[in-house]
Amino acid sequence: MTNKAPLLDGLINSLRCLPGVGRKSAQRIAYHLLQRDRPGALKLADALTQAMHGIAHCRRCRNYSEEEFCGLCRNPARDRGLLCIVESPADVKAVEEAGFRGLYFVLMGHLSPLDGIGPEELGLALLNQLLDEGETREVILATNSTVEGEATAHFISEMVKNRSLQVTRIAHGVPMGGELEYVDSSTISHALSGRRTLR
Amino acid sequence: MTNKAPLLDGLINSLRCLPGVGRKSAQRIAYHLLQRDRPGALKLADALTQAMHGIAHCRRCRNYSEEEFCGLCRNPARDRGLLCIVESPADVKAVEEAGFRGLYFVLMGHLSPLDGIGPEELGLALLNQLLDEGETREVILATNSTVEGEATAHFISEMVKNRSLQVTRIAHGVPMGGELEYVDSSTISHALSGRRTLR
Repeated sequence: MTNKAPLLDGLINSLRCLPGVGRKSAQRIAYHLLQRDRPGALKLADALTQAMHGIAHCRRCRNYSEEEFCGLCRNPARDRGLLCIVESPADVKAVEEAGFRGLYFVLMGHLSPLDGIGPEELGLALLNQLLDEGETREVILATNSTVEGEATAHFISEMVKNRSLQVTRIAHGVPMGGELEYVDSSTISHALSGRRTLR
Repeated sequence: MTNKAPLLDGLINSLRCLPGVGRKSAQRIAYHLLQRDRPGALKLADALTQAMHGIAHCRRCRNYSEEEFCGLCRNPARDRGLLCIVESPADVKAVEEAGFRGLYFVLMGHLSPLDGIGPEELGLALLNQLLDEGETREVILATNSTVEGEATAHFISEMVKNRSLQVTRIAHGVPMGGELEYVDSSTISHALSGRRTLR
């Protein structure tokens, strides 16, 4: 075939860096942008370049930040005694939307020895430094309730157990609005063992 | 909240120009690119800019082209007597993969009076010019078998009926590998009325 189109082929190949986008989807996206939204595509190109060059990590909490320290860490109105440890920046957003007003520490992953992700990759040295400052009175472990998340939470709780601070784990149980009938048994078993007295 | 992140927010908003990407997906894509594929994202930005500026339409067949005339129209090995009329560049790719070796004319849409898409928007004046050249001996109508696609095929067949050329419509019927049991009745009815003698 002599129908060479290097720019179009280049665009289709590059679009495959997006998660979950294969050859067919990439082709569909490329045609969509060419036909319906060229200004949007140019804006996206600009936003991608700026974001990839301008976004690094906060030196204190490891969350994404466009400055040396992120807005949350610099905010004097936050309760500096509470430190919520999460796996990813998306988790910060989720906890933030739930109304938490303390500070965060973002692991950017979870312990996963097979993938070569150990304490060092999760920035636990930085976490120790941060706790050395002595502002923190409670560490809230809010890693995911997966095998790796639980292992990571356990590892951190062991690591900080000699410090004079409270270590808590977020509650696991039946989600709000959830019906018992449709909740899996492992969640119900957690909900039972974590039951609280009402009065 | 004082957690301002203009670059990240800008990236998330811009990603929403992609088809089928809402706020949550955009956020997930942005985090994915930041964490796992910054070089890919920069390459994508570059490919987007180059493609949006460098890809226009072929002056003969209206397909996307990076030069005045596309590779297919410039190829002397193609059968210039056959003209396959399709709705979109993706259709050209599909027909091309099926082994067709004539030329194409791309409508870039279908008749849709409610959306203001009439003969002019589909470049039918250009199609007439092209047929005036006299090279074409058969027009193959390969628009989709939707209501709009059928209407468009009908409109074009009426438009060219005074010319001394053959006008054909691609066959509709049971897809290869399809089992009758699972094929819808409208397709079977087409397959029956389009039946061919074997000998």
